[in-house]
Amino acid sequence: MKTTVAKFGGTSLASAEQFRKVGRIVVSDPARRIIVASAPGKRFPEDEKVTDLLLRCYEEASNGGDFEPTLRRVDARYREIMNGLQLKFPLDEEIARIRARLQNSPSRDFVASRGEYLNARLLAVYLNFTFVDPEWCVCFDGEGRLDLPMTRRAMAAALRPLERAVIAGFYGADMSGRVFTLSRGGSDVTGSLAAAAVQADLYENWTDVSGLLAADPRIVDRPKTVKYVSYRELRTLSYMGASVLHTDAVLPVSDFDIPINIRNTDRPQDAGTTIVRRLPKGETKYPIIGVAGRKGMSVIQVEKVMVSDEAGFTAVMLDILKNRRLPFEHCLTGIDTVTLVMRSDLLAPCKASLFDEIRRTLNPDYLGLTENLSMIAVIGEKGTDSCDANVKVLQALTAAGIPISTINQGAGKLNLLVGIPEERYEEAIRAIYSTIDESL
Amino acid sequence: MKTTVAKFGGTSLASAEQFRKVGRIVVSDPARRIIVASAPGKRFPEDEKVTDLLLRCYEEASNGGDFEPTLRRVDARYREIMNGLQLKFPLDEEIARIRARLQNSPSRDFVASRGEYLNARLLAVYLNFTFVDPEWCVCFDGEGRLDLPMTRRAMAAALRPLERAVIAGFYGADMSGRVFTLSRGGSDVTGSLAAAAVQADLYENWTDVSGLLAADPRIVDRPKTVKYVSYRELRTLSYMGASVLHTDAVLPVSDFDIPINIRNTDRPQDAGTTIVRRLPKGETKYPIIGVAGRKGMSVIQVEKVMVSDEAGFTAVMLDILKNRRLPFEHCLTGIDTVTLVMRSDLLAPCKASLFDEIRRTLNPDYLGLTENLSMIAVIGEKGTDSCDANVKVLQALTAAGIPISTINQGAGKLNLLVGIPEERYEEAIRAIYSTIDESL
Repeated sequence: MKTTVAKFGGTSLASAEQFRKVGRIVVSDPARRIIVASAPGKRFPEDEKVTDLLLRCYEEASNGGDFEPTLRRVDARYREIMNGLQLKFPLDEEIARIRARLQNSPSRDFVASRGEYLNARLLAVYLNFTFVDPEWCVCFDGEGRLDLPMTRRAMAAALRPLERAVIAGFYGADMSGRVFTLSRGGSDVTGSLAAAAVQADLYENWTDVSGLLAADPRIVDRPKTVKYVSYRELRTLSYMGASVLHTDAVLPVSDFDIPINIRNTDRPQDAGTTIVRRLPKGETKYPIIGVAGRKGMSVIQVEKVMVSDEAGFTAVMLDILKNRRLPFEHCLTGIDTVTLVMRSDLLAPCKASLFDEIRRTLNPDYLGLTENLSMIAVIGEKGTDSCDANVKVLQALTAAGIPISTINQGAGKLNLLVGIPEERYEEAIRAIYSTIDESL
Repeated sequence: MKTTVAKFGGTSLASAEQFRKVGRIVVSDPARRIIVASAPGKRFPEDEKVTDLLLRCYEEASNGGDFEPTLRRVDARYREIMNGLQLKFPLDEEIARIRARLQNSPSRDFVASRGEYLNARLLAVYLNFTFVDPEWCVCFDGEGRLDLPMTRRAMAAALRPLERAVIAGFYGADMSGRVFTLSRGGSDVTGSLAAAAVQADLYENWTDVSGLLAADPRIVDRPKTVKYVSYRELRTLSYMGASVLHTDAVLPVSDFDIPINIRNTDRPQDAGTTIVRRLPKGETKYPIIGVAGRKGMSVIQVEKVMVSDEAGFTAVMLDILKNRRLPFEHCLTGIDTVTLVMRSDLLAPCKASLFDEIRRTLNPDYLGLTENLSMIAVIGEKGTDSCDANVKVLQALTAAGIPISTINQGAGKLNLLVGIPEERYEEAIRAIYSTIDESL
């Protein structure tokens, strides 16, 4: 029998109505045996997430203030779900326990984790699945660091004997039972760890969008959804700011080639985006899956005759940055020239002293700075035998009269990175999208 | 009055007939006041250069052999010039002096320098110019290193008072009069130093080709001559193997924006190639001036999720190479990936241990090697506002079905560097040349 681990996000579990949708999704496919639950999210744009309310309770309690009104709002959220679905659940007892902890020994992580805990318990009752508390199987060490190998063992031990289970996302505990949370969005990671532990056939990530978009919808009018994305392409999307999946959620499943399917709880008929290592047989895809970018970049250009002959020149240059703990985004060396792309906000506070040091250490023939640049990534693992897609992209930019400062595609052929003036960012994104739109 | 420093290469001064051509060139423009002479070169393909003969004399003398037959061939070369032009010159005395030195205290550099010395003396007599011995003004320190500031002073001191002068190329001396030679082709450097010292308006470099070609004539059928080349573009051409001018010859004149004009002694009617910092007013040029490349390249590809977030990753990678004194040609970092282009011959002897070290030190997610690549440089300082030329080049390669592994253009916009399979090198050069041919 196939096993799907299905994680539902905050908006998917925000109300009794949403719980019903989730219930229909779960029962419609018997492979969906392991469910990961987030805390109730926003029901409407001005709504507050339960985790934010819980964190406010903690702040109020720590400052000796009155957290009761806020805790009552938390209670109300769960009561709406419980009553709406007519669930039998000792909610008063659970809320009393949180109240006691807030009064006696408030712990930020423990309080924050209660949103997922309660929601998962309610969902388990609703679905008639076994509740699994990640306290038992998402293993942190004493310093609050996730212990991955131990988590894999413990998760497998907890989940494999169960036919159907709901596990709470976002948190775990150390050996003494002290609760630690993952970073925000960490339920994605819990789901990924669960999928890896049970060697699931599929990891479904149910959220409020029908997958990854090929471009930023604030810039491009109704961009298409990407059907397949490779793990590597997804990393690029995350780097460029796409936030549909937690970055750390990819690694555990990619180790076992388990596909991740991004789905929309409100539109279960949409196929969503599937993240895979390789395309399924018979599927073909256009080499470009999307376009994204970052503003606020600066380019440092160092020229020195015979750079290529001096093995250490670029290394010395990068050592200067390393010693200053100044990260750079990209580095390109040509003949006699080194180009460094950096975030302008990181460069700004140390610009003068950095340039001084470069001049003193490397004595370059030319040292230049271009600010207000955007880096655009044309994302997609390109086939070996064609560069056609790249040509089209550069052609689109050229036709639009957008000057290109840097061009960079490494041997991995994953992305074509181009630097362009910041003020033409939106225009460039649209120009590139229009060339790939038809092929998506 | 304008001053041109004119350097004549070995083939330009290989015989009496060539001396006559040089004489006509020099008198045709009174600005040609300072002439730099090379040693007699080849008169026909199987001929030997006088410098090579002299070096053989030195080898023979050092090994206690009989150098007389070889020295007689040197003598014959100068005698042909002297007699052909009916010059009065104490050649026997000069040859006797070389002989004595070979017998008593043979010095490689001294013997090697006699080719230029004698040729410059003969040319001075022929042109009725003052002979300047670079022993006096091309200043080496005791370790045989050229002392540039001192040379500039001494050269200016030697040349400025003279109306017309011939200076021998290729050598100089230290304070004690010990002769040192520059590297082969060093007369180009002597000419450049002289031009800088007298702040010449033009540095002419007369040779046996009518300038720089836009592509390798062994690959492309009759490629065009490039009219203007910037100093930076020339450096790229040299890096890629064009050997028309000594690399070190650019810096002294480029400091003073003195143009270098490559001319053909056998075809003085050709304008040749002019090397400048900026185009003269009114001149326009196509952004690409030529295409060149190198075979025998390998590409190392290192991938690790979050490379971009770890400031030191690339620096550590380059340190590994630096500590091994292993030079790399180009480096490109994208998102999560570092691509290093290296010479295969340098990589071969240490491949296994290098890959071991990279694995141990960086623990990459992926470490790949692609061998048998060529790097092609599409050379030309591109204008800020168009990338059209780059598009055409990539289009040409794509149309020819040539796979492109890496693409790299830094902020200097000097070259577009593309990596392609070695076995398609000639085809790629031709494909690119055909797109730029019309525009040259």
